[in-house]
Amino acid sequence: MNSFIYYTPVKIYFGQYLTELGKEAALYGRRVLLVSGRASVRKSGLYDRILDILQEADLEVFELPCVKANPEIDLVRKGGELCKTNEIDLVIGVGGGSVMDTAKWIAASAFADFDPWRFFSRGKQVTKALPVITVPTTAATGSETNASGVISNSATKDKLGRSASAILPKAAFLDPENTFCVDAFQTACGAADMFSHILETYFSRDAGLFMLDTMMEGMLKTIVRYSAAAVEKPDDYEARANLMWTAGWAINGLIGSGKQQVWSCHPIEHELSAFYDMTHGLGLAVLMPKWMKYVLNESTAERFRRFGCQVFGVSEDIPVMDAARQGILRTEDFLYRELALPSLFSEDEVHRQDFEMIAKKAVWNGNLKNAYQSLQEEDVIAVLNACMQEDNV
Amino acid sequence: MNSFIYYTPVKIYFGQYLTELGKEAALYGRRVLLVSGRASVRKSGLYDRILDILQEADLEVFELPCVKANPEIDLVRKGGELCKTNEIDLVIGVGGGSVMDTAKWIAASAFADFDPWRFFSRGKQVTKALPVITVPTTAATGSETNASGVISNSATKDKLGRSASAILPKAAFLDPENTFCVDAFQTACGAADMFSHILETYFSRDAGLFMLDTMMEGMLKTIVRYSAAAVEKPDDYEARANLMWTAGWAINGLIGSGKQQVWSCHPIEHELSAFYDMTHGLGLAVLMPKWMKYVLNESTAERFRRFGCQVFGVSEDIPVMDAARQGILRTEDFLYRELALPSLFSEDEVHRQDFEMIAKKAVWNGNLKNAYQSLQEEDVIAVLNACMQEDNV
Repeated sequence: MNSFIYYTPVKIYFGQYLTELGKEAALYGRRVLLVSGRASVRKSGLYDRILDILQEADLEVFELPCVKANPEIDLVRKGGELCKTNEIDLVIGVGGGSVMDTAKWIAASAFADFDPWRFFSRGKQVTKALPVITVPTTAATGSETNASGVISNSATKDKLGRSASAILPKAAFLDPENTFCVDAFQTACGAADMFSHILETYFSRDAGLFMLDTMMEGMLKTIVRYSAAAVEKPDDYEARANLMWTAGWAINGLIGSGKQQVWSCHPIEHELSAFYDMTHGLGLAVLMPKWMKYVLNESTAERFRRFGCQVFGVSEDIPVMDAARQGILRTEDFLYRELALPSLFSEDEVHRQDFEMIAKKAVWNGNLKNAYQSLQEEDVIAVLNACMQEDNV
Repeated sequence: MNSFIYYTPVKIYFGQYLTELGKEAALYGRRVLLVSGRASVRKSGLYDRILDILQEADLEVFELPCVKANPEIDLVRKGGELCKTNEIDLVIGVGGGSVMDTAKWIAASAFADFDPWRFFSRGKQVTKALPVITVPTTAATGSETNASGVISNSATKDKLGRSASAILPKAAFLDPENTFCVDAFQTACGAADMFSHILETYFSRDAGLFMLDTMMEGMLKTIVRYSAAAVEKPDDYEARANLMWTAGWAINGLIGSGKQQVWSCHPIEHELSAFYDMTHGLGLAVLMPKWMKYVLNESTAERFRRFGCQVFGVSEDIPVMDAARQGILRTEDFLYRELALPSLFSEDEVHRQDFEMIAKKAVWNGNLKNAYQSLQEEDVIAVLNACMQEDNV
């Protein structure tokens, strides 16, 4: 177990607190850049409510709408310039992970005297950022309460994530009701994303704290228990609340305490998204079980057994390898039957001739050689091939 | 489920980070009041290491040693005066819960123009406090990372806890090695204390978040798994680390999110400590199973069943009430056999003629009529009587 620092000073308002947004925002200044996505946040009325609340608090609002999924560096550049030109004091992101990530990197770009893509391509450090407040409308990326953000560059076919303490949101307004309007597919993709955040941490080279293992198992059980419920009944408050609270804790620094983390599926998915503008959670849903099968072996079986028993109630009395396999099958069952996500990529959207390049970039950008089970390019290609047709791994 | 605010901005250094204490302390000023307990922190060498580190960082250290268990308001008064006289910038508490609680309330008293006991007796609000840093040497009260503290007044036979965001520590240095020297009895008492913090939250009138139920079950399992190990092998790093990390998360605001909390055993124990200067964890260890048996009934059985199955692996296939009882028996087994704590109070130390007054104060100070199962004075007396002889409840 490694030493670690845990520091996540985000003020989290959970539930019916949106009216506090004005007062909270006013702590940081008067000129607000309000970053948002496309239609849904307007259709639900949330966007107008926020505008009203900010205006009531006597704040001047500048708007930057139209963040898309797999958000682009171009909009970050534009937002950074907007901040400089208009002397913005504070950035608020209202929407899903893409919006919040964009808001964070705009906040960092406001003080950058270089092209913000260099935060990603050159590892330029964030020394200063505008304060950020998040109002998530999905339970998925956990971006609302962490210091990371993923940005794409379609010109270079890159999708890269970076962290910096300066972009950690000052406050987050988590109202489960704001996720009622998320459709079945996006709810399922969000569930797959947060399931994956925990899985990537759970399967780690470092033995960490048992206490955190039990927390991770609890969160995975929570996702399994409530995702299908939220898909079926979008306004199930209990389900939405559990998913929303889990999304944040899955990736705010707690569960990875004391572990060196090198993730496996996320780096591969990022390359797929960069190449095909794929929905992040969908890519992960297809990849996860294939990766699990690929890295299951004598040395990893015990961990997979524990996962199966604790998360899915697989019997403790069957042989280790059988229990391990059962855990993977139950994961497939959850993703593909209960959440009705596709189990394979179609040949129309994903092209085998790209796999060599995708694998090369994933191994490099994701440091996959040091992952839970070391992945070389040929391993990534094998996992990707398994995503194209049933059971060839 | 209620709306809630979660905000615990403590910078937690976990593991080998003590050398950072000087830099961290210097953020808040140059004049430090170092609050500590009695012998053990000196014997282990930790106290001298801290003095060296603070002096190396060019800080001026004022010392306030000799905090005792069930810490007294007198020392808080004295510390508050010391802060005023010496223009202290920062209070550091190195020791167990009593030391850290004393440090916190000294920090608040530094700005009080009234007797600090009024924070407790009259509910005077804390409007301002000196910054506090904690260096815990036990895994028990969780005081290192929360905004609460319990202070006794032997003159009035009171022991009262209060919370205030201003006394939340700015930073906490959690090194499991600093708990290696905690003896078997105190290790067991610490385990009972944190077990109780979770139990008091787990058994609540409000249905909260399932996700937090699973986290609480995980933490309880962690305590059960590692306490006996730490008692047996005091320098078992894995055990000490798991216990230390659990102690904080058991009572830092997370697991109670969305629940109205009115505790049961703690208020009764506080009166016992006030009357008899009892060790807090020992009082809780005796009380907990008696309270559990007392409030077990048709309406609470399902919750107790869940507790038994999830924490102690009681079979899910037996009748609800049987599983509930099994959970309580396993708790007794854990506390009295594995941790070797006494299961009863002796007639020498606890006197039945005080029970009426103890019950009256517990019901009033603890708001016990609104607890998980409403407790009137006669209920508290019945629980206390059960603590004097085997199985009379």
